Amino acid sequence: MTGVIGKNNSDLTEMNRSAVVRILQQQEVCSRADIARQTGLTQAAITKIVASMMEMGIVSEVGIITGSDNRRSIGLKLNADKHQIIGVKFARQMFAVGVFDISGKIYFQTETKYPFEEDPQKVLSAMKKQIHEMLNKYENVVSIGLAVPGPYLRDEGRIAVVTQMSAWHTVNFIEEFKEEFNKPVFIEHDANAGALAEWLFGGHTQPLHTLAYFLVGDGVGAGIIERGRLFLGVQGTACETGHISVDVHGPRCECGNYGCLEMYCSAPAILKKVKERVPECLPSENPQSSDACTAVFEAARAGNQKAMDIVRETAEYIGYGCVTLINGYNPDIIIIGDVVSQGGDLLLPIIQEVVRQRVIPELHTKVRIKISDLKVDPTLYGAAATATDKVLQLPSKFSAAGKRG
Amino acid sequence: MTGVIGKNNSDLTEMNRSAVVRILQQQEVCSRADIARQTGLTQAAITKIVASMMEMGIVSEVGIITGSDNRRSIGLKLNADKHQIIGVKFARQMFAVGVFDISGKIYFQTETKYPFEEDPQKVLSAMKKQIHEMLNKYENVVSIGLAVPGPYLRDEGRIAVVTQMSAWHTVNFIEEFKEEFNKPVFIEHDANAGALAEWLFGGHTQPLHTLAYFLVGDGVGAGIIERGRLFLGVQGTACETGHISVDVHGPRCECGNYGCLEMYCSAPAILKKVKERVPECLPSENPQSSDACTAVFEAARAGNQKAMDIVRETAEYIGYGCVTLINGYNPDIIIIGDVVSQGGDLLLPIIQEVVRQRVIPELHTKVRIKISDLKVDPTLYGAAATATDKVLQLPSKFSAAGKRG
Repeated sequence: MTGVIGKNNSDLTEMNRSAVVRILQQQEVCSRADIARQTGLTQAAITKIVASMMEMGIVSEVGIITGSDNRRSIGLKLNADKHQIIGVKFARQMFAVGVFDISGKIYFQTETKYPFEEDPQKVLSAMKKQIHEMLNKYENVVSIGLAVPGPYLRDEGRIAVVTQMSAWHTVNFIEEFKEEFNKPVFIEHDANAGALAEWLFGGHTQPLHTLAYFLVGDGVGAGIIERGRLFLGVQGTACETGHISVDVHGPRCECGNYGCLEMYCSAPAILKKVKERVPECLPSENPQSSDACTAVFEAARAGNQKAMDIVRETAEYIGYGCVTLINGYNPDIIIIGDVVSQGGDLLLPIIQEVVRQRVIPELHTKVRIKISDLKVDPTLYGAAATATDKVLQLPSKFSAAGKRG
Repeated sequence: MTGVIGKNNSDLTEMNRSAVVRILQQQEVCSRADIARQTGLTQAAITKIVASMMEMGIVSEVGIITGSDNRRSIGLKLNADKHQIIGVKFARQMFAVGVFDISGKIYFQTETKYPFEEDPQKVLSAMKKQIHEMLNKYENVVSIGLAVPGPYLRDEGRIAVVTQMSAWHTVNFIEEFKEEFNKPVFIEHDANAGALAEWLFGGHTQPLHTLAYFLVGDGVGAGIIERGRLFLGVQGTACETGHISVDVHGPRCECGNYGCLEMYCSAPAILKKVKERVPECLPSENPQSSDACTAVFEAARAGNQKAMDIVRETAEYIGYGCVTLINGYNPDIIIIGDVVSQGGDLLLPIIQEVVRQRVIPELHTKVRIKISDLKVDPTLYGAAATATDKVLQLPSKFSAAGKRG
């Protein structure tokens, strides 16, 4: 049994502020009565909470609106533009930096490519330089979020295994970033970040209980949010679906396990198959794995049978991954994102057929499987969502930080 | 994004009562100062909370104790015996009923066997009769917990698939039990119940972050508790580790999936192997699967090579299950329980070797794997823990119920 923490009145106030901000983050404009109804709190309580948040500059009034009950009342909105966020995606051969606000609005983004063998310190310097430039340009930034490939060891601040980029194994992200800027930096595993992006910025109008974001790209992994909370595990490395065996007697993976899902349906696995079976599709002699994905989906759409076979095999394994996610986490939605999901129209029917065949009806009829349709790369957006989630959790803390900054 | 709920002052008070009760449930006797330190609340706040709980009869003073700081102060204890719980384990060929209290103390237990093909209504009648008898005999019962095999569909109140007992598929447990007694009944999946038993009654002195209870018996499944909360999924069927494939091209399981872990290391899988390879070990012509387990472990300990092979194969697959649990949930402890775990001394070294070989060092060195050493069957104890957890969550509600009852 773990530590038991009591709550005092200021915790309570902040929890309720957080509830109000989360509602406004999703619904743009709301009346006090609407918020009272959705939180289950009295209108008097909401009036008091809103007053304190207007004073802090977190929310403001926007004139008269007509509520769901047809009554006219004063509308409230989040001062999202006063709470900007820098998101940073770090990947095997590129990093991206973007400026957002806590409503998910995008102000700016840029992408920097580098080769596999690049010195990590050079990459980090370039990344920091870009972040400093953004901080100079956007004065309302309250926090920075960084998404890294996993398994990322949260307390240690480093990545345990990144297939194909072992030089990064020793970089300590917490050390690198904690003193660099005068804003708090939050670091999250890429699949967890993607899950937060879908949760906060996905525009899901139906209430969700358990969301699974299934990242299928250079790596394969999942981020699971149950009742608003990421499932992390003790070191923050839970939901490493890509390293769950689909065949315990299969070939060995770099992680030490055998027959890992990642070996069958990741972008590098597709690259390998394309090189072997349809090399004529490839745009260059030394293509990145994402180029191979684009090429094979294009060839399959044009009717190339060998390309179609690769797509079918890939989709089947993504389907097996979905079956594992359903048996392992019982989500109401699985959202597939990252490089491989660009073949969504080809992949989805096969994935759904695999799930229908292999999961009991009571479960498979309950889960919706879709391809991510976020307007920004889910991992970059997720980096921003990681920092946004912290702001939504402790709104008064970040409002003060915003004023100081 | 899901519904956002605000908290009012009475919620806050009950959350803090819950925190105090959880500390006393684990530590038997504590001073107000100790509780203040552990909850992070002021001593004045604790004094007020404790006063309200003494009035409700939930806690009482037990004289002078010497605290961790060597100061003498008044000890507090939970009135556990005033909060008794009836736990009911329902399994494929038996049910068990026990009387406990919220400290995990056992007052009484009984077990009833029946054949596979028994009419479910007959079994339910016998079960209800025994519960009524216990309610007449033990007047301080505040709640009843029931543990059932899974996947159990929480909202629908029924079991989706129980391998080998399809007649139970249509029984609605909520309907059967909700009006039967004048005490609240809580129903939980057997592996989740076992996880709660370990969490609440396991006597773990180290704080735990993520606990995995790995049930290996007639079925195979897991219950995961992260930061005090069961991971459930939208229908309550998460963590069905037994139906995660270890070979996606393996034989078909009753659940529809292929190569499910459960097919390789459950008690019925052992029974099948023993019948084929060492039938001379079996005590009778038509043995239960648990008899086969007992027999094969005994024969292996006596040096029978064929029995040792079955044990090794079983342990390897339990090991693969542990690898999946580590990659999927990143627990700090995995506790293996139920019928198959009686071969713990034979199984554990092999399981640990498989995990060491297949999991990255950063993760496998962090996780402790052990065999359950609870003094009561983990599923029966878990049934009691399921109801206990509800009492600990809303102590004032059940104190009132206790008085009325």
